Amino acid sequence: MQKIALPPLAVTCGDPAGIGLDITIQAWLNRAALALPPFAFFGDANALAARADHLGCKLTIARIDQLSGVTTCPPDALPAVHIPQPNTTRAGKPDTANGATVIEAIEAAVAQVMSGAASALVTNPIAKNVLYAAGFKHPGHTEFLAELATRHMPGKKFTPVMMLACDELRVVPLTVHIPLASVAGLITRQSILDTTRIVHAGLIRDFGIAHPRIAVAGLNPHAGEFGKIGREDEEIVRPAIELLQQEGLIVTGPHSADTLFHAAARETYDAVIAMYHDQALIPIKTLAFDRGVNMTLGLPFVRTSPDHGTAFDIAGTGRVRPESFIEALRLAHRAAQRRADHTS
Amino acid sequence: MQKIALPPLAVTCGDPAGIGLDITIQAWLNRAALALPPFAFFGDANALAARADHLGCKLTIARIDQLSGVTTCPPDALPAVHIPQPNTTRAGKPDTANGATVIEAIEAAVAQVMSGAASALVTNPIAKNVLYAAGFKHPGHTEFLAELATRHMPGKKFTPVMMLACDELRVVPLTVHIPLASVAGLITRQSILDTTRIVHAGLIRDFGIAHPRIAVAGLNPHAGEFGKIGREDEEIVRPAIELLQQEGLIVTGPHSADTLFHAAARETYDAVIAMYHDQALIPIKTLAFDRGVNMTLGLPFVRTSPDHGTAFDIAGTGRVRPESFIEALRLAHRAAQRRADHTS
Repeated sequence: MQKIALPPLAVTCGDPAGIGLDITIQAWLNRAALALPPFAFFGDANALAARADHLGCKLTIARIDQLSGVTTCPPDALPAVHIPQPNTTRAGKPDTANGATVIEAIEAAVAQVMSGAASALVTNPIAKNVLYAAGFKHPGHTEFLAELATRHMPGKKFTPVMMLACDELRVVPLTVHIPLASVAGLITRQSILDTTRIVHAGLIRDFGIAHPRIAVAGLNPHAGEFGKIGREDEEIVRPAIELLQQEGLIVTGPHSADTLFHAAARETYDAVIAMYHDQALIPIKTLAFDRGVNMTLGLPFVRTSPDHGTAFDIAGTGRVRPESFIEALRLAHRAAQRRADHTS
Repeated sequence: MQKIALPPLAVTCGDPAGIGLDITIQAWLNRAALALPPFAFFGDANALAARADHLGCKLTIARIDQLSGVTTCPPDALPAVHIPQPNTTRAGKPDTANGATVIEAIEAAVAQVMSGAASALVTNPIAKNVLYAAGFKHPGHTEFLAELATRHMPGKKFTPVMMLACDELRVVPLTVHIPLASVAGLITRQSILDTTRIVHAGLIRDFGIAHPRIAVAGLNPHAGEFGKIGREDEEIVRPAIELLQQEGLIVTGPHSADTLFHAAARETYDAVIAMYHDQALIPIKTLAFDRGVNMTLGLPFVRTSPDHGTAFDIAGTGRVRPESFIEALRLAHRAAQRRADHTS
């Protein structure tokens, strides 16, 4: 099958005081050696140029208004959809006055992805507390993206699902940044059903797996040993799995989480649904600390991001590692290619 | 420093219907190639001989009454302190009538370790429900060993602490087989203090680490982000760590558990104190599924065991993997050697 040539990826600036600019510059300068897909930057082009200067990097930027202008860019220039910010950025010093620009860059990038002018969205890390001070009303990046998707497709509601992916493992935490003591009370049959169905669809559409195999981790040690260690695995997790099996999905579990992530176990599934943050993130960060990518399933477009934060403490220092961002570019491109091939 | 020649390790039979006999036979037959330390078996010698026959292995057994008899054993014979069981064992078919023998083997082995006739204890897996039916009154193997230690040292109380160890990682779960919902309520300053002090002493005495560095994992995601995600990390874990630091121990944390187990992080500590079962067991089983060893710290003798159960479903099938048992023999020998060198 001939591959369709895709438009560039849309890369948002994220918080310009964070490491988003550093990793964008590093990826661009090494794009040939790393065989990276084409991408364009959304944010303040001056801030990007200043960071490159600060790092002693020779970066050429081509300012464009819309991604359609990308075809006129010289090949050695990073295309940048310039969205001016009010204040000059200092690396490591977040400025709430620039928050509106960070949000605007996300909105512009999503608009271009929804129109088809960009193939997929790759977001750099934001600092929620900085954006809250700038009037941001959403719990996080992902929820904001779901709302933007609805803005472009009125009447449609989207349930975004976070998947963490590396070469060795794909894992989806059912709950994330909540106290451990609250986890058991928040696991419901419905959340397992909704999440697993979205993951199943995502594995088919974005990963090209015709018959995805999904393993569900138990909540309790040894998945509760059939109700001896907590009741949730029998009363909530197992019935949800059985319902999904009745729908024809290849879903297994609840599995003892401790024996679910070694190499031989990983051969038996395409993704894991984990019950809570550390159950999902310990294995993937143990296996691939620098290479994990955050991917949002359940949106009408492909979205990835590096699996780290703004790291203000090292922004602009030259000690920033771009591996996760680079993998985010690659994964977004591969997923967009699969969607394009499938719908062509 | 010249190494003191140690007496043999005392290996208990565990449940004779489980895989304990299989792995003992496999280790013995490969002892030269694997350079294993000397060991003696405690249990029914007939059951052991029958399992070897069943597996088609040529095994010579030398029956002895006490470990002191080991010096008269021919070098090609596995020394066995024969403790007769009432019924013939069938692989995979546990028999409560043989439970008393399983317990007696543990008692005999501990007596030999306490007397110095054996260098350390390596226990094969038991099936608690089988032993309960035979009148066993202890929550588990480890608690029984602590009571036996007290029987030999009247008036002394021991707090056994389970450490899981492989080449890549040593980790100690503060809580184990309890529902996840109960974990937060059971983490106390005192349990962190007691456990960390025992681990500290164990790292010095059994691992030869002069100034052990201990990392404590946080309970909540991102170790609670300074109280934003649950209060326990600030109110319980951090004060305990600070107390230990005031005592002069090199203890750090609470650390975000997800970023605590990759290769670079593992360079920064000698052991991790984890808050619950999966937080400890996911990383070690992801890194070293077959090679993890269970070691009990806080007893007056060295005790290790393979990090798996009786596996009745594969006992006697020839599909049993002895790696964890082999590592348990090696670790017990190394720790006993360190204690002997230190006290000589």
